[in-house]
Parts: sequence; structure tokens; C-alpha cells
Amino acid sequence: MLMNEINPDISPARNGYVGTRPVRPDGVPKVTGAARYGADYAPPGMIVGKVLRSPHAHARIRSIDTSKAEALPGVHAVVTGADFPDFPDAFAGPERIEKNMFHESSNVMARGKVFYHGHALAAVAARDDATAKAALKLIEVDYEVLPHVITIDEAIAPGAPQVHDGMITRNVTPAPTTPSNITRRWEDSIGDIEAGFAEADEVVELNFDSVPVHQGYIEPHACVAEYEEDGSSQLWVSSQGHFTMRDLTAKMTGMSPGDIKATPAEIGGGFGGKTKVYLEPVAMMLSKKSGLPVKMTMTREEVFRATGPASDSKIRVKVGAKRDGTITAGEIELYYNSGAYPGAPFINGCLCAFGQYDIANQHAVGYDVLSNRAMTAAYRAPGSTQACFAVEGVLDVIARKIDMDPIDLRLKNAIVEGTRQLGDRTVSHNGFREILEALKAHPDYEKPLGPNQGRGVAAGYWHNMSGHSGATCLVNSDGIVTVANSSPDIGGSRASMAMMAADTFGIAYDDVRSEIHDTASVPYGDLTGGSRVTFATGKAIVGACSEVIEQLKTRAAEIWGVDPDAVDWVDGAAHPSSTNVGKFEPLTLKELAADASATGGHFGASYGKTMSGHAPGLSAMFCDVEVDPDTGATKILNFVSCQDAGRAIHPAYVEGQMQGACVQGIGWALNEGYVYGKDGVLQNSGWLDYRMPVASDLPMLQSVIVEVPNPYHPFGVKGVAEASMVSALGCVANAVSRATKRRMTSLPMNPQTVLKAIDTRGEEL
Amino acid sequence: MLMNEINPDISPARNGYVGTRPVRPDGVPKVTGAARYGADYAPPGMIVGKVLRSPHAHARIRSIDTSKAEALPGVHAVVTGADFPDFPDAFAGPERIEKNMFHESSNVMARGKVFYHGHALAAVAARDDATAKAALKLIEVDYEVLPHVITIDEAIAPGAPQVHDGMITRNVTPAPTTPSNITRRWEDSIGDIEAGFAEADEVVELNFDSVPVHQGYIEPHACVAEYEEDGSSQLWVSSQGHFTMRDLTAKMTGMSPGDIKATPAEIGGGFGGKTKVYLEPVAMMLSKKSGLPVKMTMTREEVFRATGPASDSKIRVKVGAKRDGTITAGEIELYYNSGAYPGAPFINGCLCAFGQYDIANQHAVGYDVLSNRAMTAAYRAPGSTQACFAVEGVLDVIARKIDMDPIDLRLKNAIVEGTRQLGDRTVSHNGFREILEALKAHPDYEKPLGPNQGRGVAAGYWHNMSGHSGATCLVNSDGIVTVANSSPDIGGSRASMAMMAADTFGIAYDDVRSEIHDTASVPYGDLTGGSRVTFATGKAIVGACSEVIEQLKTRAAEIWGVDPDAVDWVDGAAHPSSTNVGKFEPLTLKELAADASATGGHFGASYGKTMSGHAPGLSAMFCDVEVDPDTGATKILNFVSCQDAGRAIHPAYVEGQMQGACVQGIGWALNEGYVYGKDGVLQNSGWLDYRMPVASDLPMLQSVIVEVPNPYHPFGVKGVAEASMVSALGCVANAVSRATKRRMTSLPMNPQTVLKAIDTRGEEL
Repeated sequence: MLMNEINPDISPARNGYVGTRPVRPDGVPKVTGAARYGADYAPPGMIVGKVLRSPHAHARIRSIDTSKAEALPGVHAVVTGADFPDFPDAFAGPERIEKNMFHESSNVMARGKVFYHGHALAAVAARDDATAKAALKLIEVDYEVLPHVITIDEAIAPGAPQVHDGMITRNVTPAPTTPSNITRRWEDSIGDIEAGFAEADEVVELNFDSVPVHQGYIEPHACVAEYEEDGSSQLWVSSQGHFTMRDLTAKMTGMSPGDIKATPAEIGGGFGGKTKVYLEPVAMMLSKKSGLPVKMTMTREEVFRATGPASDSKIRVKVGAKRDGTITAGEIELYYNSGAYPGAPFINGCLCAFGQYDIANQHAVGYDVLSNRAMTAAYRAPGSTQACFAVEGVLDVIARKIDMDPIDLRLKNAIVEGTRQLGDRTVSHNGFREILEALKAHPDYEKPLGPNQGRGVAAGYWHNMSGHSGATCLVNSDGIVTVANSSPDIGGSRASMAMMAADTFGIAYDDVRSEIHDTASVPYGDLTGGSRVTFATGKAIVGACSEVIEQLKTRAAEIWGVDPDAVDWVDGAAHPSSTNVGKFEPLTLKELAADASATGGHFGASYGKTMSGHAPGLSAMFCDVEVDPDTGATKILNFVSCQDAGRAIHPAYVEGQMQGACVQGIGWALNEGYVYGKDGVLQNSGWLDYRMPVASDLPMLQSVIVEVPNPYHPFGVKGVAEASMVSALGCVANAVSRATKRRMTSLPMNPQTVLKAIDTRGEEL
Repeated sequence: MLMNEINPDISPARNGYVGTRPVRPDGVPKVTGAARYGADYAPPGMIVGKVLRSPHAHARIRSIDTSKAEALPGVHAVVTGADFPDFPDAFAGPERIEKNMFHESSNVMARGKVFYHGHALAAVAARDDATAKAALKLIEVDYEVLPHVITIDEAIAPGAPQVHDGMITRNVTPAPTTPSNITRRWEDSIGDIEAGFAEADEVVELNFDSVPVHQGYIEPHACVAEYEEDGSSQLWVSSQGHFTMRDLTAKMTGMSPGDIKATPAEIGGGFGGKTKVYLEPVAMMLSKKSGLPVKMTMTREEVFRATGPASDSKIRVKVGAKRDGTITAGEIELYYNSGAYPGAPFINGCLCAFGQYDIANQHAVGYDVLSNRAMTAAYRAPGSTQACFAVEGVLDVIARKIDMDPIDLRLKNAIVEGTRQLGDRTVSHNGFREILEALKAHPDYEKPLGPNQGRGVAAGYWHNMSGHSGATCLVNSDGIVTVANSSPDIGGSRASMAMMAADTFGIAYDDVRSEIHDTASVPYGDLTGGSRVTFATGKAIVGACSEVIEQLKTRAAEIWGVDPDAVDWVDGAAHPSSTNVGKFEPLTLKELAADASATGGHFGASYGKTMSGHAPGLSAMFCDVEVDPDTGATKILNFVSCQDAGRAIHPAYVEGQMQGACVQGIGWALNEGYVYGKDGVLQNSGWLDYRMPVASDLPMLQSVIVEVPNPYHPFGVKGVAEASMVSALGCVANAVSRATKRRMTSLPMNPQTVLKAIDTRGEEL
């Protein structure tokens, strides 16, 4: 099943580790407890910070009186929004962090108004937890409670209470004159959508909706900040990008990024949710005011109430197809709820909805809707998931209408290199056909189904990302090579970096140490996100190692008294090249390292670059479910997902990414979701009431890796961390729909929803 | 007085910081207490290690029973010598660490025998200090007490007890057959020593001696070790070289250096005494056995008893000179006491004794003597100090005999570029004449003296060192440049590195952050010692910055669409060069940094090299003292020291080095010294009884910096940290000798010694 059609030009390794499954370097410390997470730092003199959060979904802050809290013995500092620099209230696009600074900063610490229940409006730092909590109770806030909106329907209803006064929808011509909770609009098309529908033999149009879900990482947000007035401030952060945390913290506290050293902690899960700052600028400001290091940690309840879930959505999809399966037109209209500030990934939804299909006529329009809920954050292929759920549901209906195998339908319309896409893009790599073919060839695809069982097929597209990564490579005197990079290791990147380094040098995997370094020790790196790390950071690692290989070759040349060009690097050693073959014994990396001091110096290089050439992530999958017609409960019987990894550096990690994505997709599809009361207060802010899948909910998740190498990566890598998540919701929904003979268009498909559909609706396609 | 005759080719800076006195970057955290020293780390789960030390000066360990200690609740691990790898008992030269591993390792943890009172023979790790101390008391040791030797005279006396059984003196032909406590011998000569003495009009021969003195750093040794079996072990160390501490710890624990990351703490003084491991391998082994991080700290008493002081010495010097001052012959025979294991800097003594003089006929012979005392360690220009005290004393007598000004006598014989020296060396730089002339020109040199007052002159030579240094340079997006290096900052190197970086780039000093990085983050670096850091590490910093400038120029060239060679870097900005002048606006570092992600990547480089081209350290000084004839107490009235800095990067730090060296020399000359009982136990192991100079003991110390640039350093630097120490003892001794009219040849010259000389001896030259 594993397609190892590797481009021979791509793999420099001989007897290499790439493609094998060595032991992960972070395994032992994580098992023994030695690994340091965000809350595991404790500089001398450290005190504790706590946040005061709004008890109202929407309110004007008439006044905050912190004097009693400040007077409490053991309290070292109290901050409110007044302590932070102000930013202009610019409702511009989210493309650059700077433009959103008003939103990001107000979300971290409210100014003037609180926009959701749990919104931070003050914080204290005290000698201990109990004192800090007592101090929070002494802060007196005078609120003017305002009407709130929670759902998309409430927010876009005529006459709805305005989240932000006077907000006008962007990117509408002519500009509207009536304020709205829709903050942004995006639209694009290919071809002639009406002509496309006219060509079709079948046209299907359905409406879909979903509720907010949380990424559900195990580790709550935690950080330690230590302010120093001399430019040596420090930040210990558990995040998906300590450079970004540093930059945002600097911005929001009026500091300069270079004045802060951010050290990455281990991260207990992120999935997009740890790409934003919440506590870090507050901790830094409390440290500045108190003169002491400040630790802040969230409770689980705070994580649910005040960090970003994925958007809830309302989506209309209309697809037209010919009897032979050719899709002639695809249209999508989507509303994503962004919570209190703009930032929902609705453009991603538009760009990815039909991303995997070659459709001549397409039209997408999306809206970013504000409400009185916690500001959303990224969640694994952000925005693509909800749209794919809708599109794949409609395709499933089309397949049934034209009586075509659902994989064949997708094969018929699969993108290939050169296909035009919305957003003025062109597909750069093949791979989608290959995974569809691999999926169809899976033996389980022909397995017969029993009563109340259904098999759902779906495919997903995520554009993946690249960006900037930094790496360093140092050779120790014992020949052990230390490679470090700028990307927090969420999905096992220390292992894959070590493997790529080992194969670049041609040395043993056990002779490589792989680390993530602080912002003062390694060139800049963007967030760990967008499935970019194995691709972009891997390229940086290979870049740093390659520079060191040049140094090693030059040293060997000096030792031999030959030209550096007359030295080859093969299998971990410098060899004299053709005219000198046999004249000198090869010098291994270990030998060159041992004599480094004596022969001119030790070996090391730094490498940082904005990388290009990444390939999109594509998934195809099917799952079998059985629905209990009496309870509406769904049991997943089998789940087979297939992705194109380009090349799987460490296949176990690739499989892990695919399995993890499917699990999160299953949770989103079947059970997860925020439940709000009429008062705008989240009612299920803990693991007991917010139902994530556990091991016993799941079957063995089968992962099929296809490898169509990416020629723009030295080992052929394409990002793999998100694509299976994109299609998992639709895959489960299509299976449940086929099992129940009811088209499922609302998430979550929990027992009560499914039972209601069975009980109240007739059979559907 | 400041001679700024800088070679214009050497200084690349315009409007530069080099030569100015900006605020030190480590000042604020050191003043506020935020700076982290060795004992300031506390990883989660950390326990405490304590050492059991020998109560005897010399004993065979018949048995150690640790079972009761191990059984004590709260004890996590106990180690003895049996837990550490064994090394062959090789009494070879000290040139390479590897060869001495038996000695170094046995010194850290005794095997079979204890060789001095305070010698470590077991250690425990327990939940807290009290439990660890209680456990030490439960370790049962059966000792066979052996006779001991403490002084050089005792050790070299015929029939003396042998420290190490059967030890034969090395480097004697034919090899002796009788065992001896003299472990090594070194000899060299220039010319014909007997002919030289025959030419002389005056020949003076004197015997000198000194006792051991401690470096007296404020911070006792401290470390935290955390063993991980997966190659991610950590070491936090307060030391003069975290790479060396890592390498030694790895060796002594059977680990590989690349498996340990050593992080440098701030260091509260070292002066040579923190170049060896004592606690680190023990802490690592305790961590390995206990599975927990282990912190170990020494008490002040342990520092005195068990870390390395400077050698005590016995020296005979014979010098012949003509009436015109020409020295025709110089001979030195010296014995240095090394304590329990070989390693006394007796070769340095031989090499440096006449280092500053051009003498046609020289002969030096030295001996490394073992005794039952703590193994010696380096102390600021190790070995040169004692020899210089002796040579400069004899020269003072010569000057009086031929009635010549003592500075003129030294000028008459001063080395210049090309002078031959012992050890088959040739002087590579001028500078000695220049400092002697500057000293003579000092107005205080002509000041009249009162009764019981004396003016002493002395000059010193220290060969200085270079070695390997590593540096990294990263440009943050705000244009702040982070430079990091591999050398623990003892004497203000963060400031000088920042200044050299600022001038290399042509940017503001305040825009540079200067750090010392862990062993996984910066290329390898040798110890901070030998006055090598500003020279060698400075070159590494300039190397890393220069690579980044090339990157910046290339980026500007890409932006402008010109060849990188057509870009100049001037005053912190890329400028189009001649044919393109005026076509493009200059791009500043800040502008290039801000757009780095968008234009191809961020800027950063690593640089590491074995550096060459260092210049020797040379000092010349005079001091005025007044001796109370009734008490023998000496008061320093004035102290003027003069050194050639090559170029003083931060003159305040250079002055600080000179002043500090003079203070330590004054302490060594007048008061400091180990006092042993007959039982071989040190009797003054604390600050109350070991008398170091305090501020009220000292006059204003005048420092005169002369600058004769070193063309082998981009800013002209010569090392400055040790040379004044070399001559300070002799300078004070010559002043006291002239004040008392008694030739002082024994250190310390405390009141009882001086009074005895006055009371029992007649007037002398």
C-alpha cells in the first residue's frame, strides 16, 4: 500500500534513516516527567499572576477600582487595560499582525468594554495563588450590562445588538451605510457559475451548520515572564511559536522584540490554539510593575471561556454535475463566527472548499461575523474543515443521484498539476489522484456493510504553508551533531529534523541531538502551524547541515593540501575525489570533529530563510459507521485515511498526524460543541461536559501514506499535519447519512440530533 | 598619558564605541539580583547533593559502607569512587586533559586513598540539606592513616613519605630509580649561562619562597546536573568555561560531551579557580542514580579545603649584569607545590621568569612537587607570579648595586619584537619599552618619599593565550542585533563584545544585546582564561558580524538588482557603490531587518575558530609603601600600574582588570596564605582567618593604559587581565625592601615577618 515512488534526485541519503521509524528523541523526558512544560519554570523570586474576567457577555466598564486589591498584603502589582499601550481601532484585514493589534491587544486585556463572558479586564500578581485570588475579589468593577449576540443567526439578524458600535462591513462596494456585525466579506469566482449550473444534469443545494469546538489540547496556557529594564527580559512560553509570542508580547507591552528572549517550553498540544497570546503580555506587564518574575497559568475553565475555539458556521453549497460525474459548477456561501474580534478563517473556507476539484465554474463568497463570544483561533486547517464538511456532503448526494462510486466521482474531478483554483492560484503538484486510487484499492473498501451501517467517503484540501524557519548545526568534539531549530516541536519534529540531519551528513541517527532553541540562539522562525515545519524547517536544517559539510570538506582539503573542490562528502566522511582517490584515507566526521581545535576550529552554521515550494495537503478517506436507531448513537467501525506525504520522513509520525486528525474530526462530527445559555455564558467549560472522543470511542484508524515527492524539498516532503482533519467531518457525516438514510447537515451529530432526524424526517439521499 | 597611537588600518569603526565607556549590559541584573548564579537554578523535582570529605591528610580507605546512608528516608542516591569509570594511572605531562584524567577524576572522587584533608570520597543526594548532611554522618569509612607531607621542603626531603607510591620524576635522563615526590622536571636554556655570569660586573643570587594562596572568588562552586538517558542531560554551571566543564563531566562519568547541554550561569569570580570540575561529575552521577536533578554547592570551608589554591614555591634566582645595566646572565631554579596531583604551573614559571628581558644567556629549571594538600589550580597568570616576585627582587638589588634607576635598568634590557625567549620562542610584538617609558613619565614617580617609606618598581610578563572561541550573531526584526559567544563573562566581556559588534556594524551600542550561550547554541569555546577572551572571542564576534554584513549586503543587492560587490556597508547601512551612487537610497540595518521575512529571510551567522595572533601581556608598575617599624605593618601609599592593552575596547574594564590584579597581588604579597597544622589540616579556611585586602587597605590604584595595537586583531586588542598580577608581588616586595632596608624574599610580608626581618637582620640592599 505504501507507494515509494521517490524521485531518485530527491534523496541524497544512502542507507538513510528517512522513511524509517527510529525512537523519538523527546520520548524519555516526556515519559519520565523531565520534560518542562509552560508551568514548569520557576525563576528565583517568582510570584503568581491571575486574571479577573468579565461575568457578563457584553458590558461597558464604567470604572475599575483596584485600590483594595493593591493594598492587600502579598499583592505586588495590579494591571488593567490602562497599563497597556493603546492601538488604533482599525478593522482592517487580518493579513498582518500589526493591523490587528487593537483587536489582539483588547482581547488580552479589555479597554472600555468587555465583549464576552470570561474577557480579561484586570490582573494581579501576588506572592501565591490564594493571595492572588483574594485580590481579584477585591477589584471593584462597575459594569453597564449591554445586550449580546451569540450565534451567527443572532448576529446577522436585522436590528441585532452591535458588538462593536458603528462597525461597517469591509470589502463591499459601495460601502454600506448601516452598521453590521459582519466585519468582512470575501468573494471570488472562476468561469461562469450560471452557465455551469445550466450545463449540469443534476444540481444539489443544501444548507449546513456547525457549532464552535475547542482544540482540546491537554496543557492549559502557561508562561513565565521576567521584565528587565536593560533589554534582557525573558519569556518562557508553551506555544506554537515563541518568536511570535515574543513579537506580540513586545508589541502589546510597548517593548522591542529584541529586548525579550523567549524560550520555548514543551507544548502539551496546540492544534492552532497556541498561536495567539493571552497571558504573556499580562505576565510581562505584571513583572514590569512588580519587578519580579511572574508565572501565569490558566485553569481548564479559563481555557474554554477565554481562548479561541474554531468558528461555528452557516454554509450553503450548490453543486451541478453531469451524469458522467463531471462537476460543472460549484458555489459556496459561508458565514463564520469570529467571536468578539475579527479573524475567522472564512477566506480559507472559500479558498479550500473546492480546492481538490477541477471545476470550470466556481463561485465563493464568505463573511466574517462578530458575536459576544471568545475570539476564535486557528484549529487544524482552520476554515477548511467546515467548508469541506458542506461540499463533501453535497458531493455525496450527487454521487447517489448519478449512481456513481463516490471515489470515482472525486477521481473524475481531481485536481492535477496546473489546475486553476479560486484565489488566482494554480495547482503546483500532483498527488490527489494517487491517494484516491490508493484509497479505492484498499481491501476494506469492498467489505460488505450490515444493517444500520453506512460507508462515507470524503476528500479534503488544505493549502499548507511555508514561511520562515531558522536552524543551527553544531558539531561537538565527540562527533555528535546538535541541530536546533526555531519551530516548537508539536508533532515530533525533533525526530524528523534529526533524521534529515543524519541523512544529510550520512551519520548515525543516534549521533544527532535535535533541539528547539530560544529566540536569541537560532534564526527567526514563524509559527509551528500550517503543516509547514517538516517542509520549511526541514529545509533550514538541511541548509545548516550543508554549510557545515562545506566546512568539513574545506578542513579535509586543508589537511590533505588539496583544493576543497577535490573533496567529496560521502557517508559521513570526506573523501578525496577522482584524481586523488587512494592518496588519502577518508576523514570521518568524528575524526574531523575530534581534531577540530587543533586543525583550525570547530564546525557550526546558522541558516534562516523564507522558504518556498511547499505543496498542498490532500486527503481522501472512508469510514464505516453503525447508528443505533433506538438511541441515535453512532459507532465508528472502521476508518481508513489516505494522504500524500510527498515523502514520509518518519512514517509513524505521519500516521500519527493522520490518526490524530481523524480523531479530532470524529469528535467535531459526533459530539463536541459549545453550549451557551441565554445569558451568553458557556455552560460546558470542562472535560466532563465538553465531550471529546476517548480511546474506547474509536476503532483502529488505518493510515495509508502515499508518496509523490515534492521536488522543492531535499527529501521530497509535503506537509501532512492537517489534511485528514479537513475531510474527517464530511467523511463521518456521509457515513451517518448513508447509515440513517437521512442527510446530516448539522454538527455535532450527537445521539439526540441523529435520533431527531430519524424520527422526524423521511428517507433522503 | 593615554597613548592612542592606533594603527589606522586596525580600526574599522567610525564614530565608534571602541575606546569609550558605555554602561555595562550585565549591570542591572547584577544590581537588582535578577542575575542567575550557579546556585540560582532549580529545575522541578530537584534534590540536594553533599560531599563526604576526608578527615585525614593522607589515608588508605580500607572500606566504605554506605548502606545506612542509603537506608535513611529521603536519601535518593549515594556514590563513591566505585561508581565512576576508572582511568589509567598515567603520570604523564599535563598538556592534554585526557592524559590527566586519572588525576582529575581521583581528585573529584577518591579511589582507594585520600590524599588531603577535605578530599571527596563519597556523596549523597537527598530531599533536602539536613537529610543529606545526616546521611553523610551515616557513611562508615575505615581509614588506615598514613604519614603526610605538606610543604615543599617536607616533600623533597630524603626519605619523605611518598604521596603516590613508587612515583618517579619525569623528564630526567637517565630516569631515576628512586621514587620521589617530584613528579616532573623541565629545563631550558639560551646561550652559555656560565659565560654570561663571567661577563658580569655584579652577580646577585637570592632564595625566595611563598605559601599557597586562594583566588578568593566570592561565589562558592555550585552546579545543577540533570541526567537523562536519552542524550539530553543538562548541566548548569558557574565556571570559567561551560564547554570544558561539560567535557570533563562527560569524561569522568562515562558520557559523551554531545549528550550534555551545559548552560553557563553568571560567575561570581574565578581568577583561574573555576577552570576545573569538582562537583559537576558528582552531581551528574547522583542525578543518574537518583533519576532527579541534583544541585550541589560548596560551603566556603569546602572551597578553601578542597579547591585549588595557587602553588607555594621555593625559588633560587641568580642574575649577572654589567655596570651599564646590561644583564648578561639569568638563572632560575624553582619548585612549585602541586598538592595531591601533578599540575603546578612550574613550566609557566620557567617560561615567564625572564620573559620581559632580552638576556643573551639564560637557564631555567623547574620541578613539580606533590604533597598532601588540595590540588592546585590556576590563579591569574598561573606560575608567572611567583617567579616574577623572585626575579624582580634580584633585579632590584642589581639596580641598587650599580646605582641605576630601576625603570632604566628594565628599559636597558627590554624585549622588543624579535627577541629570543626560553621555550624556543620569539617576541612577536613591541609594547614593553612603551609602558616602561610611560611609567617613568608618570609625575608620581618623582615624588619624594618620607621616612620608613619605599618605592618599589617591577615589571611582569605573561604569555597570554588565544585558543578556540565561538560566536553567533542574529538580527531581530526590530534591528536589535543579538551577539552571543562561548566564553563565560567574568571581566565584562559582554560589554566589549557588544561594542565590537556595534562598531563592526556601525550601529548604536544600545541596539546590541550581548549574551553567553549554552553548549548547544554556540560553537565551541575554550575556557575564559589566559587573558584570551577579548582577543579570541572578540575575533569570533567580529567574524560572525562580518558574515551577517555580507548577508545584508547581498540582500540589498537583490533588492536593488545589482551585484553584491556593488554594495558597500558603511555606518550601519548598505550603500550602492561607486557606479550606482545616487541611484538607490541606502538601506539601513533596521530597514533590512524589518523586511527580512518578506525579502528572503532573516539574518544570522555562527562563527568558530582556533584563533592565532595573540600578543603577550606586559606590565610595569611602581608602588610606594610605608612600613611601621614598631609593628611591621605595611601601608600602601600609592600604586601606579601600566599595561599595553593593544587597544582598550572599554578602558574602564581594562583599568578594572589592572586594579583588580594589583589588589590580588597586594593581598598575596602582604597577608594571604594557607596555614597548616601538624596534622595536615588547613587552619584558616574562612574569610575571618584568611586575610584578603579590603577597600580600606588600599590606596587609589592608578592605571595607565598604553596602546600599541596588535595587528592580528580587528581592533588591535592584546589581553590585559593578568599581566599586572604578575609583577604586583615583586613591586610590593621591592617597596617594602627599600622601606625597611631589608630584602624581603618570603611571602606573605605580614607584620610578624616584616618585624622579624627588621629586628633580626642588618640593613640590606
